[in-house]
Amino acid sequence: MSEAPAGAEGAGAEQVGAEHAGNPTRLYVRYRITGRDVAEVAEAIRVEQTIEFPVELAAPWIQDEVVGRVESVGPDSVEVSYAPGVLEGGLTQVLNVLWGNVSIFEGVRITEIRLPEGEVGLRGPRFGVAGIRERFAAPSRALLATALKPMGSSSAELAAVAGALAAAGIDVIKDDHSLGDQHWSTWHERVARCSEAVAEANARTGHRAVYMPSLNVPAPEIRERAHAAKELGAGALMALPGITGFDAMRALADDDELGLPMMSHPSMLGSLMVNRDQGISHGLVLGLLNRLAGADFAVFPNYGGRFGFSTGECAEIRDASAQQRGGLHSTIPSPGGGMTVERVPELLEFYGNDVALLIGGALHRGDLATNAARIREAIGS
Amino acid sequence: MSEAPAGAEGAGAEQVGAEHAGNPTRLYVRYRITGRDVAEVAEAIRVEQTIEFPVELAAPWIQDEVVGRVESVGPDSVEVSYAPGVLEGGLTQVLNVLWGNVSIFEGVRITEIRLPEGEVGLRGPRFGVAGIRERFAAPSRALLATALKPMGSSSAELAAVAGALAAAGIDVIKDDHSLGDQHWSTWHERVARCSEAVAEANARTGHRAVYMPSLNVPAPEIRERAHAAKELGAGALMALPGITGFDAMRALADDDELGLPMMSHPSMLGSLMVNRDQGISHGLVLGLLNRLAGADFAVFPNYGGRFGFSTGECAEIRDASAQQRGGLHSTIPSPGGGMTVERVPELLEFYGNDVALLIGGALHRGDLATNAARIREAIGS
Repeated sequence: MSEAPAGAEGAGAEQVGAEHAGNPTRLYVRYRITGRDVAEVAEAIRVEQTIEFPVELAAPWIQDEVVGRVESVGPDSVEVSYAPGVLEGGLTQVLNVLWGNVSIFEGVRITEIRLPEGEVGLRGPRFGVAGIRERFAAPSRALLATALKPMGSSSAELAAVAGALAAAGIDVIKDDHSLGDQHWSTWHERVARCSEAVAEANARTGHRAVYMPSLNVPAPEIRERAHAAKELGAGALMALPGITGFDAMRALADDDELGLPMMSHPSMLGSLMVNRDQGISHGLVLGLLNRLAGADFAVFPNYGGRFGFSTGECAEIRDASAQQRGGLHSTIPSPGGGMTVERVPELLEFYGNDVALLIGGALHRGDLATNAARIREAIGS
Repeated sequence: MSEAPAGAEGAGAEQVGAEHAGNPTRLYVRYRITGRDVAEVAEAIRVEQTIEFPVELAAPWIQDEVVGRVESVGPDSVEVSYAPGVLEGGLTQVLNVLWGNVSIFEGVRITEIRLPEGEVGLRGPRFGVAGIRERFAAPSRALLATALKPMGSSSAELAAVAGALAAAGIDVIKDDHSLGDQHWSTWHERVARCSEAVAEANARTGHRAVYMPSLNVPAPEIRERAHAAKELGAGALMALPGITGFDAMRALADDDELGLPMMSHPSMLGSLMVNRDQGISHGLVLGLLNRLAGADFAVFPNYGGRFGFSTGECAEIRDASAQQRGGLHSTIPSPGGGMTVERVPELLEFYGNDVALLIGGALHRGDLATNAARIREAIGS
């Protein structure tokens, strides 16, 4: 269940554990320590992430029941567990305990998280693989996603592209994450035009494509914009948790009146992962955290593209997205970057069919509709 | 005006520039590049942060006017500028342009940001040094801040401590960032009790201390909790932008009905800074971004404490917080960690009097009121 993914390094292998050898009410976090004394850092972490106060001055029951516990110390890692009370208050506090002040420690990286039973009260993705497959009338094939670009295009131009992509069989047609509320294509106008264009294409072709606007908007407007997007005909929503926070996405996923699939984009999350001796492992950020925060789809840079994610790191994300955990639905990985028709068989071999391949530039070199149809054909049915 | 701060390293010195040698409507960002070809990364960045699309396929006007421009390429850094249109949509889009996808690049660090004139429409801190000094009736002395701890204490216990601290002359008495909505001290109960205790102490002593609750609460409740806190008597608020986003803090700072001083806590922001070849420099994250997002106070780990910030990095934060920029008020640095009475003269020498020293453990070893009174005396009047 929590096997090291293919390609991960031996001792420091990032893992996502779902089973508890320990106390099922506690949160267990494994930190890999580089260039520092493990026992000393362990002692610092268990205090820093809880009472941040001289332990000997705290009441004995607080020392026992509130301060984190060092569960095991290895040559290059330590496991610390946290009491359920410490985590109370929702996802923002879970994040605070996981990575709050320890984020400022050099040479510390979270490589494994074992959640308490009940997934700290989080509901996770609304749809899951089965729900998403039903929505797209795609019982078994891989899904296809793409982004509307380039910034500078008018809403009419983007809508024309959206319509062509929907007609060609792309399932998820999302705003590029760079599109916000620029004068070239303002948010409301773009959402209205692109939703219409995709609806028209669906009516003509029988496809079930969705237009998915970005919610990289002012924080106090996120909920209102999400509902406005739905009213304008958007079929799904994209959030940028690195900018507006994981809990803002969680709230949209949990919104029963909204009830739309959510996609998570990794904008600004990179520094959490790409410094390999510090941060939180790729699988935990883009797989586990996205999933806890309700992402039905998680975008990330595929191996072999223009970013430096390794095969092993992409495998971690894939595995953390789908690993069985309590009642929590899966997140569908959405790898992007360097996607070509020729790579489709390899990608389906690697990710399986429960994936939404995010195709970018490959659609735009030559005729868009032809390219989209070729990719659509390559994934099979 | 944008001198390298004391202690910063020569070539790669982090700087915050306010003056424009270039086009005053554009945003200029300097990236330090490590272990990669500078010109190649520069070309990638200018596209990645704007159209994320094959440049040669974009319309010529988009290539000219929307894609970022490489302004200069040095041996280990590059400056890229961005058109004002790209930034439209508020702080979330400014962050997206600054660090969205580039956050996933290894070996890239932002070391300088020159904002367009008008500070991209952001209002910054509501109070500024003069406004804060008036509020605390402290025309010239340094301010003192501390956190209510340890987690596990009841609201009555925390309130008793808050009252004693207020009576002893501590100005800002904030929730520890670990305090959320745990059953030991639930959020509403704690805010009510601590606000009362501080108000009673003020009435008795004539001090102007404020209680400052943490807003590490569910994202959709931030605004409502901020207003509830004010009604319950809280005199200031603390936000955790690394968890709930910089724009959530910005919205509270801009809320005219609320009108309370804001403090920013660095929880979860560490990985953006502490990997010195990647991320964004300390001064830019904790000085400039906090300031753009309306923080009247910015908490950060002081040099010589239990975190690894250098003297030079703390100087950057200090300088970016106070550097003159358009109509934007300053942020008051609030260094914490390892603060003792003995260090006060050194700290005031380093930060000047426009500082809020965040005193932790030193208050709790021995008698709280005596310790607080000693620190209060050490800062002078």
